[in-house]
Amino acid sequence: MTPDKSIGRLSLYRRILNTIDDDSRRHIYSHELAAMAGSSAAQVRRDIMIIGYSGNPNRGYDIKELAESIGIFLDDEEGQFAALIGVGNLGRAILAYFSGRRPKLKITAAFDIDPKKYGRVIHGCHCHSFAELPVIVQKENLSVGIITVPAAQAQNTAEALIKTGITGIINFAPVRLKTPPNIYVEDIDMTMALEKVAYFARIHENGRLTH
Amino acid sequence: MTPDKSIGRLSLYRRILNTIDDDSRRHIYSHELAAMAGSSAAQVRRDIMIIGYSGNPNRGYDIKELAESIGIFLDDEEGQFAALIGVGNLGRAILAYFSGRRPKLKITAAFDIDPKKYGRVIHGCHCHSFAELPVIVQKENLSVGIITVPAAQAQNTAEALIKTGITGIINFAPVRLKTPPNIYVEDIDMTMALEKVAYFARIHENGRLTH
Repeated sequence: MTPDKSIGRLSLYRRILNTIDDDSRRHIYSHELAAMAGSSAAQVRRDIMIIGYSGNPNRGYDIKELAESIGIFLDDEEGQFAALIGVGNLGRAILAYFSGRRPKLKITAAFDIDPKKYGRVIHGCHCHSFAELPVIVQKENLSVGIITVPAAQAQNTAEALIKTGITGIINFAPVRLKTPPNIYVEDIDMTMALEKVAYFARIHENGRLTH
Repeated sequence: MTPDKSIGRLSLYRRILNTIDDDSRRHIYSHELAAMAGSSAAQVRRDIMIIGYSGNPNRGYDIKELAESIGIFLDDEEGQFAALIGVGNLGRAILAYFSGRRPKLKITAAFDIDPKKYGRVIHGCHCHSFAELPVIVQKENLSVGIITVPAAQAQNTAEALIKTGITGIINFAPVRLKTPPNIYVEDIDMTMALEKVAYFARIHENGRLTH
């Protein structure tokens, strides 16, 4: 199986390639892409070998072709659709952030337990009752779940998602989920990130940082 | 130097301890905390040794005392203050998410290049002109920077933050920042997270997932 770090880097390479809007430029060398991605040229070449694309030793990779090849590998041809659970401040922000960003990967349904939110359209996404989750997942063929509920509800939410057949989850709640081994979970813990950065900023100020 | 993974886990342990609001319960064993944190008992004991706290072999750790000890280690006694750069959808969401959450770690100043945002108060946080960054960082003693600008502006924003003396950065922009070795950067790449989860959800559906 492709290691998940390679998948993450391929996602990053594609976004970097898509930001090169210099018309005079058609090719990029692995060492250039590596410098932009904070990686090494050897790593870039290994990752790109995974998708079966190869560059020209003299000119490097064709920028447009490489971005397309990564897309063919990463994206579902038919598109993939995600459910977001928990339409609070964070949930709304995630909806706003991803709205219209990826044509082949969209958050198409949001869920909450607050009846005031049912039926509303938030950043282009319909909001449903959490009780409808299994029905909507089936009907709209959702394959990804995004958990933006408070910590205390996160485990129950994950279990409800898994029961519908969803196998990929992004968890923004600051708890570790207990999930079966066939479920892929990516945790995004913003509080941990802030506390870590603050700690290292402080010990650096105090002159104790040695690296 | 304390490894950053230990700092991250200590942050998580504290949040877990703070959610145990069972009055009948005063102690917790390392294996119980480990189960809640997705860690091992040995790891929990090693992490807690770093902060110089020790439990009672028979009763485990005192929940309240341990949470306080982690706080003494992680938090700045005087409080620490963060600057957020880029008051778009994501920036606003981050402000809303952290607003009032941590008394000793607050986002107190936001910056943008859009004059319409200057002088506004967003989720309790004052919004300034980006040009004022060096002045406000000094005046308000800001030590952490949060980057929520578009990808193309992220590197310049990081350089401006570093110039003010800030040494800890959370980068939400989907690019890798080039920073000197004394700067601590934590990347939160939500697009990468979504693309990875979608990829693994898909290959699992297709029956190719083997782990």
